[in-house]
Amino acid sequence: VRVTVLSGGIGGARFTTGLVDAVGAEAVTVIGNVGDDLEHWGLHVSPDIDTVLYTLSGRVGELGWGVRDDTRASMGVVAELGGPDWFILGDADIGLHLVRSERLRSGEPLSAIVADLAERFAIGVRLIPATDDRLRTMILTDDGELEFQQWFVGRRAGPAARGVRFEGVPGARPAPGVLEAIRDADRVILAPSNPFISVDPILAVDGVREAVAGRRGDVVAVSPIIGGEAIKGPLAAMLDSLGPERSALGVARHYAGLCSAFVVDERDAALVPAIEALGMRVVTAGALMRDAPARRRLAEAALAA
Amino acid sequence: VRVTVLSGGIGGARFTTGLVDAVGAEAVTVIGNVGDDLEHWGLHVSPDIDTVLYTLSGRVGELGWGVRDDTRASMGVVAELGGPDWFILGDADIGLHLVRSERLRSGEPLSAIVADLAERFAIGVRLIPATDDRLRTMILTDDGELEFQQWFVGRRAGPAARGVRFEGVPGARPAPGVLEAIRDADRVILAPSNPFISVDPILAVDGVREAVAGRRGDVVAVSPIIGGEAIKGPLAAMLDSLGPERSALGVARHYAGLCSAFVVDERDAALVPAIEALGMRVVTAGALMRDAPARRRLAEAALAA
Repeated sequence: VRVTVLSGGIGGARFTTGLVDAVGAEAVTVIGNVGDDLEHWGLHVSPDIDTVLYTLSGRVGELGWGVRDDTRASMGVVAELGGPDWFILGDADIGLHLVRSERLRSGEPLSAIVADLAERFAIGVRLIPATDDRLRTMILTDDGELEFQQWFVGRRAGPAARGVRFEGVPGARPAPGVLEAIRDADRVILAPSNPFISVDPILAVDGVREAVAGRRGDVVAVSPIIGGEAIKGPLAAMLDSLGPERSALGVARHYAGLCSAFVVDERDAALVPAIEALGMRVVTAGALMRDAPARRRLAEAALAA
Repeated sequence: VRVTVLSGGIGGARFTTGLVDAVGAEAVTVIGNVGDDLEHWGLHVSPDIDTVLYTLSGRVGELGWGVRDDTRASMGVVAELGGPDWFILGDADIGLHLVRSERLRSGEPLSAIVADLAERFAIGVRLIPATDDRLRTMILTDDGELEFQQWFVGRRAGPAARGVRFEGVPGARPAPGVLEAIRDADRVILAPSNPFISVDPILAVDGVREAVAGRRGDVVAVSPIIGGEAIKGPLAAMLDSLGPERSALGVARHYAGLCSAFVVDERDAALVPAIEALGMRVVTAGALMRDAPARRRLAEAALAA
């Protein structure tokens, strides 16, 4: 069985480890979000892609991002010299950013660089950034429009999100292999990632939403919301301010027309009829992904849906 | 007394600490060599300037360069990912390079950045790179022409230097303040640095050699050669292959016409008559700079010459 996952950072990466356990790494393609990318200290940082790389290579930090036990000597000097220190970059992490940034400057496309990083980190799965073109998630707030990381990290997601805009679309072309991976997979999974800022920026790439909708019968979404709370990140508050509603049903409504199956946590069993009414099969499973067995069970539930 | 020093890396930086002890930091201007600069991992690295910054701020590493007790986490990842690792950059050191590189990319001149770094590191002395323009020291060898760091670090100064060329001159303009610092100083000192690759690239900047020669009566050179051996670096072998001869006298001949006084180590007292014959006053002193008192005594000897 060939599986293609549209994934953001922490949630999608953890889900993918379960998928790898369930079907083997060689069966898995991850299409990664680049809407959160940023230029920081002249480095091109791809937080979501890197979280997938670090998680699948077993080197991710305790909080789900960055490199485990990484040090911050560079950052200390940058701060001492008056540089911006609102976005944390560890020393080992910087090594990766240096390599990527230099190769980008030399003209290599992001997707080729990421494929090589994935190979060198031996993550096994195929990892493709959604696009090689510039695509940036912008958050509309009462304080104006902010780049995603400026809002999420710089402002700690303080000002309520009134809207989300993807800079660079239409026009951002799918990276080589993206449309084929969606077309040729036995199953396409929308990972338990934030729909607004992790999956939508992938869908916003030219032709991707249509490609996914065209596979609707084989597309499964996994809810990133459990009992009205996000597993991770700013999703709950975004569902409050952006709609449609703060629950797995809200996420299902957001994905209406894209998937034919939906996985919710057992605690959300009461929502099943309403989600089924959207024309989706619904499977309940433990969605918290606390440990490796739980991740594998969730992946298996998604594949069975 | 206002003193301006033309300085390379380790030797010049150590000499300058003695000068600071002798006359106070506020009396000292250092004109730093940028011929050794390189682009590495997309970072603009200024080894000589940084050695001055690190030495005068008390954070220099045991070997005379880099940051003391620095770690190499970034470099480990760069190497793991197939990036070049022939030039060592520590993590704290990278923080400085990130800040400088980003500010250069934003269009700020190197001299303004270095002035700010010097201020933030509170080194006290005024530090000016010789030029804001691109100037690169190229070493001519039997294996072809190599960028200085490629030759010195990458090839461990293996192939004999047959010549030295400065890419970017004529045309490299003195950074703001360089000519004034030479013109207005009570004493101009050619530090105990390598004449070919540390002092010559400064002199090669448009107008600098003429400005120094114009102050010849107040210019003192300090020999970087003791008893036919270089205090540090590849100078001895370069005097062998480039001439005029491997001794303090060889260095004095190289500087003929630029300085009216020359400081040699006590062990080279036998060379004094020959150096005097070049039209220079000669002072003997302990030139090894083993500790702070020795550095101060050498600086005082140079000022008294």
